[in-house]
Amino acid sequence: MTDITTSTQPGAVLRERAAVTERPTTVRPTVVVVGAGFGGLRAARALGRAPVNVVLLDRHNYHLFQPLLYQVATAGLEPEQIARPVRAIVRGQKNFEFRMVEVTGLDPAGKRVATDNGPVAYDYLILAVGGETNYFGLEGIARRGFGLKDIPDALAIRNHVLRRFEHAMLEPDPERRRAELTFIVVGGGPTGVEMAGALSELIRLVLVKDYPRLNVKDVRILLLEATDRLLGGMPARLGEAAAETLWRKKVEVRFGALVEDYDGERVRLKGGEVIPARSLIWAAGARAVSLTGRLGLPTGRQGRISVEPTLQVGAHPEIYVIGDAAYLEADGQPLPMMAPVALQMAETAAANVARQLRGEPTQAFRYRDPGSLATIGRNAAVAYIRGVGFKGFPAWVVWLIVHLIQLIGFRNKLFVLLNWAWDYFFYERAARLITK
Amino acid sequence: MTDITTSTQPGAVLRERAAVTERPTTVRPTVVVVGAGFGGLRAARALGRAPVNVVLLDRHNYHLFQPLLYQVATAGLEPEQIARPVRAIVRGQKNFEFRMVEVTGLDPAGKRVATDNGPVAYDYLILAVGGETNYFGLEGIARRGFGLKDIPDALAIRNHVLRRFEHAMLEPDPERRRAELTFIVVGGGPTGVEMAGALSELIRLVLVKDYPRLNVKDVRILLLEATDRLLGGMPARLGEAAAETLWRKKVEVRFGALVEDYDGERVRLKGGEVIPARSLIWAAGARAVSLTGRLGLPTGRQGRISVEPTLQVGAHPEIYVIGDAAYLEADGQPLPMMAPVALQMAETAAANVARQLRGEPTQAFRYRDPGSLATIGRNAAVAYIRGVGFKGFPAWVVWLIVHLIQLIGFRNKLFVLLNWAWDYFFYERAARLITK
Repeated sequence: MTDITTSTQPGAVLRERAAVTERPTTVRPTVVVVGAGFGGLRAARALGRAPVNVVLLDRHNYHLFQPLLYQVATAGLEPEQIARPVRAIVRGQKNFEFRMVEVTGLDPAGKRVATDNGPVAYDYLILAVGGETNYFGLEGIARRGFGLKDIPDALAIRNHVLRRFEHAMLEPDPERRRAELTFIVVGGGPTGVEMAGALSELIRLVLVKDYPRLNVKDVRILLLEATDRLLGGMPARLGEAAAETLWRKKVEVRFGALVEDYDGERVRLKGGEVIPARSLIWAAGARAVSLTGRLGLPTGRQGRISVEPTLQVGAHPEIYVIGDAAYLEADGQPLPMMAPVALQMAETAAANVARQLRGEPTQAFRYRDPGSLATIGRNAAVAYIRGVGFKGFPAWVVWLIVHLIQLIGFRNKLFVLLNWAWDYFFYERAARLITK
Repeated sequence: MTDITTSTQPGAVLRERAAVTERPTTVRPTVVVVGAGFGGLRAARALGRAPVNVVLLDRHNYHLFQPLLYQVATAGLEPEQIARPVRAIVRGQKNFEFRMVEVTGLDPAGKRVATDNGPVAYDYLILAVGGETNYFGLEGIARRGFGLKDIPDALAIRNHVLRRFEHAMLEPDPERRRAELTFIVVGGGPTGVEMAGALSELIRLVLVKDYPRLNVKDVRILLLEATDRLLGGMPARLGEAAAETLWRKKVEVRFGALVEDYDGERVRLKGGEVIPARSLIWAAGARAVSLTGRLGLPTGRQGRISVEPTLQVGAHPEIYVIGDAAYLEADGQPLPMMAPVALQMAETAAANVARQLRGEPTQAFRYRDPGSLATIGRNAAVAYIRGVGFKGFPAWVVWLIVHLIQLIGFRNKLFVLLNWAWDYFFYERAARLITK
């Protein structure tokens, strides 16, 4: 127990005393929230009026708006425009404390989270630790390909893509030059579709102006999808529309294409096809962060922690898991690893903690699908909202508005809107710096 | 000579032929410009109408507006807002080619520049390789302190400073916490003054809102100057005014303070004084980049290459050196390592190359001092222009206008102005992300 007394958290010391005497009524219980993504941040704010102390832990000091990450990767936005410091977001909340620490483990019996800065005690715990890229054990791809989950990923893709063009300019051998200019995107979900579309526009609308000596016929962009359709979560005709739009943007959409290996120079598909390419972006899978496997909690598919319908962990009713890290089925299907699920789970978890405090029974989570959207480029998107599918310019406008509204902070909204407007009218991309 | 034929530059092969036969009149001479800073970029553009091919080499793909780098370091601006891709800047120039390569050496006899992508042949060479931080052999400071010359430097300072506050929040020991929150800036020139002022405002106007538990009395900012005055290039009363303004911003300005060593935890001054501090920013010296010592050209003080008054290198009239990398005296004083010198030298060097092509004699460089400016914070600056010194709000407005005008690209101007306006009215800083 000595490690608790070395903790800097005042609540921990108070709770130690509470263990030997009666808990004083003035001590508010502590809710520790791990992760400042969509779920964790929403849960922390939903507890703003609850009679608790909220301690939010994250290894980064910012909240990231992941849905626009592909625009950072394609030089359209700056990282700062889609991220905001947690302390700035939650400035007004009196019962809130943020700590930039990395969570390393969990002691459910002692009700403590282990971090790189010592243990943090909790009365209730909401784990919103999120997801990471799932390479399904494909070593070569994990090492040589690029995921797209965080700011460093996005900047790595941006620098890598821009550098390919600089190298291509210096490459006298035509075969090697074409390999420099071949870009493979794997995965036909929303991320892969948006990434392939944005990459095509970056190259064919912007970079061609920067590289007057470039032969644009040397450029290839491939979108490889293992099944026979794009955007599996949407009706088939919207997936067809997306594929059609990508084709018009000169993206080679390939169905039934299973990637087996990548050595940084060549992609090998199942069936033996080999494509020389110096760039591979992997948007074909997600899993819960590996931390979930080290917490001593029961995990299911994709490394996600199995939860009750109330989002509580079976053996530990004071522990909740939400978002990408939680495994819960609805209508026999696992809930998707998407922002709306995390946001709605956060509301339920916060409400259930409040119910527990009042001695009421916790309630089951019910997911209300708000629909889904994917943009393919200028004036082109597909949308499926409340059972209605639409595409083209109307879907694109809806996409713009929905994303602007969801971005946190008026300053971010303003700068993103200005950037979009500028790029739209001038066919530009501001962030074309190779920074590493 | 085989290395030339392996070069990918068409001009190199053509010139090989020219060496054995008569030079065909249709072959334009090649001017290679090394460095895309103020001098190199201006020289390349000044040669836009000359009957030459211009090849600009830089290891980065962007031009950086260094005078605002301290605002990136203090979370006021994004790197992308003060930098612009070289290819975007010089898009319209027909006789221009850019190559992202690192120059590694020089063969003056063979008229070739060595790069990490093979040799590049030239008829005329303009070296604008710039400067770097001069630590005067102080090993500990070079290793543990921060320079401020490039984007990675600025981001390193930003991340380091913001992380100090996160660590201070987790630090129970008051002495160690105060060391976390002690920031040393060394050097009372414009960079040191601007850095100390901006750091003070970042902490006292912005971060105090992010860290409600922070005791602002734990924060110390020191500006250490070895002589007994700030802003040595300006009249004494402006230096006094700057020191006075910094004091009002709670910066401890110390004169006659010579830093001897720094181990990352403690700064040791000459005379034995020791100041515990986890941050040291070194703005006390500049020198030409170390590359200048590996070119086989005669170097003078600060590693700068000695040039004739015409900016030519004595033994090689086809080689020019400009900007921070050139050593030239005016009125018995070495010309300062500042942007105006580099820009004016670029004009002279480009004009002299044109004169050589026409068979005319080259002309001597004459520096016209445009004056100098330093901002200390909100509404506060000092200016010395055409012999007239002024300070306070008027100087601050002049500073704003001059810097906005000089920024390259309307988009950069717009976004920087918007950022400044926002920060001015809302006491904010957007770029408070810890990204590494």
